[in-house]
Amino acid sequence: MQLNLAKILNEYPSKLLSEAVDQLASLPGIGRRTALRLALFLLKQDSDKVQRFGKAFIHLKEGIQYCESCFNISDDKICDICSNSSRENGIICVVEDVRDVMAIESTAQFKGKYHVLGGIISPMDGIGPDEIRVDELIDRLENNNIKEVIMALSTTMEGDTTNFYIYKRLKSFNIKVTTIARGVSIGDELEYTDEQTLGRSLTNRVPYENTLAQ
Amino acid sequence: MQLNLAKILNEYPSKLLSEAVDQLASLPGIGRRTALRLALFLLKQDSDKVQRFGKAFIHLKEGIQYCESCFNISDDKICDICSNSSRENGIICVVEDVRDVMAIESTAQFKGKYHVLGGIISPMDGIGPDEIRVDELIDRLENNNIKEVIMALSTTMEGDTTNFYIYKRLKSFNIKVTTIARGVSIGDELEYTDEQTLGRSLTNRVPYENTLAQ
Repeated sequence: MQLNLAKILNEYPSKLLSEAVDQLASLPGIGRRTALRLALFLLKQDSDKVQRFGKAFIHLKEGIQYCESCFNISDDKICDICSNSSRENGIICVVEDVRDVMAIESTAQFKGKYHVLGGIISPMDGIGPDEIRVDELIDRLENNNIKEVIMALSTTMEGDTTNFYIYKRLKSFNIKVTTIARGVSIGDELEYTDEQTLGRSLTNRVPYENTLAQ
Repeated sequence: MQLNLAKILNEYPSKLLSEAVDQLASLPGIGRRTALRLALFLLKQDSDKVQRFGKAFIHLKEGIQYCESCFNISDDKICDICSNSSRENGIICVVEDVRDVMAIESTAQFKGKYHVLGGIISPMDGIGPDEIRVDELIDRLENNNIKEVIMALSTTMEGDTTNFYIYKRLKSFNIKVTTIARGVSIGDELEYTDEQTLGRSLTNRVPYENTLAQ
């Protein structure tokens, strides 16, 4: 059966189809069977639609800009958040990528600015401190009046490593360095919360009045 | 929470990113969250790779040909299967699309030729008998010496309707019309087989000797 499957998935009747399937299957989480289904779906669409589909990625790669201040993806030299004068200049939230910016923005709880690292330190993937935008963060701290840096990275080994590396680099500045609170998710039952999170939520307990204020 | 999700998924910091996400999310089975992840993955790739990715679909749509005989996807006017002189001309297997051809080819049990309908009759999707290549099948039967037509469509309502429609159109020809056997899958337990399949496999039981011969 494995042999048959391998044969099905590799013997395409057309090189053009084979190439389209290869390209789709190169995306993370998309196997060759799904890729074939998607390629045949595209083949059934109008030419205009397929042209637009293909060009969207070429235009994205060619035309994309990064905000010169926070390095978020942007259509202009300075992104909407950085150019928004009603946001606080003194607080910078350090995140991994644009998805984190979008997630935090959706809470409507943060009125400062961002710094997008563009990755986290991950020796396994060959990403060292020089591959992410830490020097650019230091530049911002040197040239602006920043009071607080909030670290908002994933709680993975890589996230912790990056947090610690940046924390050490920031030590020489007279800046408050904070990290987002870890704890039991709202709506979650204690029984199903992992020990580390539950332990941390006990250590970092907050006065009950604080939760009423929100 | 729904509001937040909707906000996350619609407020992209760049129109180019938004367009790429829209395009990916237009594929079946790909949601906006996955689409964003894929778009950001592409953005991290080399320009050459992204160019190749985008162009693969444009080339596919522009350059694809269909075999003039069986209407399978092909790089030439006549596909490899139709132009293969060692295959039997007298047997035609009717299938829905190229994936079915690939699946049957992988069994190495069929030595005849194919006819690819390009769809099945599905009034719900606005696909009637004129949208699929039945007339072309009739043409082939009129102009070639065909002994047998094997119907190999899905056992769905649409597949059954299409089978019956083609069967009626073929009645006037002196041609054997068969359909692939339905029954319990090899390796499956009877207990977990649905009643219809099990019932059909009893009605269409075969002499035990036949199974030994294979």
